[in-house]
Amino acid sequence: MAKIPVSPMATPLPELPPLSGMRMAAGAAGIRYAGRTDLLLVDFAPGTTVAGVYTRSKCPGAPVTWSQAAQKSGKARGLVVNAGNANVFTGKAGALVCKQSAEAAAALLGCKPKEVFLSSTGVIGQQLPVAKITEALPALHANLTEDGWADAARAIMTTDTFPKASTRTTTIGGETVRISGIAKGSGMVAPDMATMLAFVATDARIPAAVLQALLKRGTERSFNRTTVDSDTSTSDTLMLFATGQAKHPRVPANGGAMLSKFRAALEEVLLELALMVVKDGEGAQKLVRIDVAGAASAKSAHRIGMAIANSPLVKTAIAGEDANWGRIVMAVGKAGEPADRDRLSVAMGGVWMARNGGVVDGYDEAPVNAHIKGRDVHIEVDLGLGTGKATVWTCDLTHGYIDINGSYRS
Amino acid sequence: MAKIPVSPMATPLPELPPLSGMRMAAGAAGIRYAGRTDLLLVDFAPGTTVAGVYTRSKCPGAPVTWSQAAQKSGKARGLVVNAGNANVFTGKAGALVCKQSAEAAAALLGCKPKEVFLSSTGVIGQQLPVAKITEALPALHANLTEDGWADAARAIMTTDTFPKASTRTTTIGGETVRISGIAKGSGMVAPDMATMLAFVATDARIPAAVLQALLKRGTERSFNRTTVDSDTSTSDTLMLFATGQAKHPRVPANGGAMLSKFRAALEEVLLELALMVVKDGEGAQKLVRIDVAGAASAKSAHRIGMAIANSPLVKTAIAGEDANWGRIVMAVGKAGEPADRDRLSVAMGGVWMARNGGVVDGYDEAPVNAHIKGRDVHIEVDLGLGTGKATVWTCDLTHGYIDINGSYRS
Repeated sequence: MAKIPVSPMATPLPELPPLSGMRMAAGAAGIRYAGRTDLLLVDFAPGTTVAGVYTRSKCPGAPVTWSQAAQKSGKARGLVVNAGNANVFTGKAGALVCKQSAEAAAALLGCKPKEVFLSSTGVIGQQLPVAKITEALPALHANLTEDGWADAARAIMTTDTFPKASTRTTTIGGETVRISGIAKGSGMVAPDMATMLAFVATDARIPAAVLQALLKRGTERSFNRTTVDSDTSTSDTLMLFATGQAKHPRVPANGGAMLSKFRAALEEVLLELALMVVKDGEGAQKLVRIDVAGAASAKSAHRIGMAIANSPLVKTAIAGEDANWGRIVMAVGKAGEPADRDRLSVAMGGVWMARNGGVVDGYDEAPVNAHIKGRDVHIEVDLGLGTGKATVWTCDLTHGYIDINGSYRS
Repeated sequence: MAKIPVSPMATPLPELPPLSGMRMAAGAAGIRYAGRTDLLLVDFAPGTTVAGVYTRSKCPGAPVTWSQAAQKSGKARGLVVNAGNANVFTGKAGALVCKQSAEAAAALLGCKPKEVFLSSTGVIGQQLPVAKITEALPALHANLTEDGWADAARAIMTTDTFPKASTRTTTIGGETVRISGIAKGSGMVAPDMATMLAFVATDARIPAAVLQALLKRGTERSFNRTTVDSDTSTSDTLMLFATGQAKHPRVPANGGAMLSKFRAALEEVLLELALMVVKDGEGAQKLVRIDVAGAASAKSAHRIGMAIANSPLVKTAIAGEDANWGRIVMAVGKAGEPADRDRLSVAMGGVWMARNGGVVDGYDEAPVNAHIKGRDVHIEVDLGLGTGKATVWTCDLTHGYIDINGSYRS
């Protein structure tokens, strides 16, 4: 298969400073790819709490099942991520691979296997050669460093064309804390739960239950508002680790107002990572933001936004730089949500093309045609029914998507 | 834009004999296309009953709204179909176009406007120039003939690469009756969506309510089991007319056993037309049949089948002739229906690749790789949960789809 060109929307990897209580190392275990890193080991300080959201697929991968079980204690000491093989649909052998990987990492890290979290991404239905992991881990353990973020971001890539990371500082009770995260896409990315893979960490000291609530809310406002191709992965995993090394006052069991700045910063990191994944959607040439307003409810607005974002005809029109608002009307109509043809309005690039069920009098296509030739395309839909609104993001559907997915295994 | 090549799965137009009580004519009204027919007028004998199923879009075209209202009487005397402009999202002006078209046809046919059915396909959001229709109708009326089927099949095409028709004879109460139909699918010159129109007629004498029940059941088993690209048209229309000219005994108000052969023949016609539409799906190179068994219910099986059929990753894998059953597992998992990873089995070309949650021992990919290189691809999924089953059909997703839909108006 020919090399995939780097996304024109690729963003440079930001400077990721060390995060106290977290060390990591990446290496080349040769699981599937040659000549690149594909295995990540992370060591967390004792006392690290953890939250996670996972795929809602009915056929989740073995590592998802493992991590969901491990998460019940709310404690984490290690994380092992591999690329190249998703360990999905691998039966009892796949579950055994998880157990052996976690045991090997736990022995090195000096913790219980159930304190080691696992995540795998790559091909489905092939047995993951566990020996390649267990044999590679000791060297990774010997190389653990606080400066490993950039290597980590690269090690978890599959068809991604650029590594993805985001970082912010904020305060809790006046004390500075940091939030940093990495993510990977870039196909089989779809709505309605976590994501592909993303790992976020903070040096804040936050109880696991509070962390979980923050992550759930943040996910709803970021990853769950994005789609590349409507196909929900079997491996979607988003984890948030809090190492507790920062010196801020104790966070109460209900979280509360003390976390308001932290929550905002976390949501910035999550949204930035989610949008990087969309920008690196397979074959993507444009980032599309869809604002839906006037819907019967926020949930309805979200569903309508996703119907537009997942429509192959809308996405191919944008790829072709055609301001074809008829296809947006079609997508609203098929969403199965309350809509009234004669109250519906559609805009692109801030120009209302259709209002209340018909084309705008004297509609001038020129500014819209100029807008759609850019990298960022903005669609607005007003249902004219209620106050429900939502924003979702997607990318266009191009020949690149067919190129990549018509020959993935070759 | 370059001319789209004819589908490799194109089927020759069958011989369509006259159907008693039905005359038709096609002509070039110049609505959008140059040098081809784009308008169809059909005259039905007095006493003709009608049934119809329409798009469930919340933004239906004006002709859909018109025909749904006209259908309440159960009687039909005329049908006007145009290609090139769908008369969708055209507001009050669009409704007026319908009224004027129906009035013009009714004056020629000697019936009420409400006995004239309308259907339009083509671009969305542009006013349909009604004068082009009303000025063309008298010449069509003068040319009405029982031998107009082939012309009719061609007049309703948009980006279709071959005309689509199907015919059967069967018996009611020992008397021979005929069922003939035409359909159109996705188009090219003004492809706003995979608009589906189909018109079927019989010389049988069947009460409208019985006809509607037959059509609804038949649609569930044919058109509603197919998908090209998951985008529901604002114009989807399937009508069934019964001219009542055949000499069979009277059909009771509840239909009943007398219609069993008729029902089977009707369902053959509907399925044949539906599969022609899939075979002419934009860019299609392969016809994909998906049999789902062992689901919790028939409805659940249908939804799982559609999740597979609409998955871009499954469709691109088939286009790439890659027997990637992991993507089928993914699609089952995202369907939101009951599924158990460890009971799921997947076959392609009759070869079971995965059983009960894992790859089959000694699975030999060679026969499956040979199968997927053919025109007809057969996928089987067994959920291992219950007795629900369903069959759905789709096509692959190729560069041709992007070509057709990414360069509209260029």
